[in-house]
Amino acid sequence: MVYRVTEARLQRDRVLRERILDCALQQVAEAGFASLAMTSLARSAGVATGSLYRHFSGKDEIAREIFTRATDLEVSQLRQQLQAPGTAAERLHRGIRTFAARAWHSRQLAFALIAEPVPGEVDACRLHYREIYAELFSQLLEQGNRDGSLQVGNIPLTAACLVGATAEALVGPLSPQAIKSRAEGDSAADFEQVCSALLEFCLRAVAARLD
Amino acid sequence: MVYRVTEARLQRDRVLRERILDCALQQVAEAGFASLAMTSLARSAGVATGSLYRHFSGKDEIAREIFTRATDLEVSQLRQQLQAPGTAAERLHRGIRTFAARAWHSRQLAFALIAEPVPGEVDACRLHYREIYAELFSQLLEQGNRDGSLQVGNIPLTAACLVGATAEALVGPLSPQAIKSRAEGDSAADFEQVCSALLEFCLRAVAARLD
Repeated sequence: MVYRVTEARLQRDRVLRERILDCALQQVAEAGFASLAMTSLARSAGVATGSLYRHFSGKDEIAREIFTRATDLEVSQLRQQLQAPGTAAERLHRGIRTFAARAWHSRQLAFALIAEPVPGEVDACRLHYREIYAELFSQLLEQGNRDGSLQVGNIPLTAACLVGATAEALVGPLSPQAIKSRAEGDSAADFEQVCSALLEFCLRAVAARLD
Repeated sequence: MVYRVTEARLQRDRVLRERILDCALQQVAEAGFASLAMTSLARSAGVATGSLYRHFSGKDEIAREIFTRATDLEVSQLRQQLQAPGTAAERLHRGIRTFAARAWHSRQLAFALIAEPVPGEVDACRLHYREIYAELFSQLLEQGNRDGSLQVGNIPLTAACLVGATAEALVGPLSPQAIKSRAEGDSAADFEQVCSALLEFCLRAVAARLD
């Protein structure tokens, strides 16, 4: 008798995998990658720990999967802003603002994605995604040179600088210490301060003209 | 009978510890943190593997120690440039140029320090040192606002942007792929190109006036 994996079984597996990843994402968004643990994750997903290992080799694989999904979402949001109508300078302004606002809105997750010390496997994903972000900025900078709203010599290098500046600027303000020391009500004012300083830095650096 | 650790023994231990770290640093400078292994390190230091474990809990501790020493050296070199005579804008120019030149001169090591995927323990050191770099830049930016050679609103945030931009700009050019694809003779020309683009970005971003 041949054992066949039925379509229904595959479907159940996919659903379970999604549920596990949803629970893991929630865990990371609440307390960072360091808080991921197979036993508590199994509990929150309502499965046996053994089941988790049927889907994932271990928590590093889960961390990498979460990192990839969450970062893909940020990349697509940024791409949307950078490719919207308007001059390149306007789009750069909107893109960075949106990126910062999204990070601000999910601080713990953003901090985990950008800066939390993570296993080498996840750190390698960061390196990869920084290149993807830089590629997005490169396209915009080229357009900016053409439409005259930006003035950039070395495009790939300038794109990397934008990626580094934006990420690093947010590390401090998003850090658990900063969040803890901030009074609830100050958050919106803080965001405006951080965002406008970041924008000033980046827009000046590429000689942006916003008419 | 009381067993006493003699001064001579302690001294021998210190010397051996230094030799192990020297060998480890050389290994990282040649092939990155990923190439560190206790057995080959013991071989190159001329000690038994067991001896290594008497000095270090494992390769992550060695990696962290190397990271700390090598980065301390870069920090002190940058501090020296940023605190030399001249306007803040001039010192920023010299500081970034020196930092980039030193990285260029020891590319594999610089790439390992800045960007190689590393264990979480070493990654945590990176976060810590980025704050130290930012603090150095913050002092300079304050001086620049006073001497009129820079014009910066939010100093801590701008300092973080400088740290991020400088580090990220170097990741691509220093990456093993880039080094491999570059012909030997092009290196000096490449450096000038990378460095001048990085300087343009950073100096514009802080509205530097170099008279």
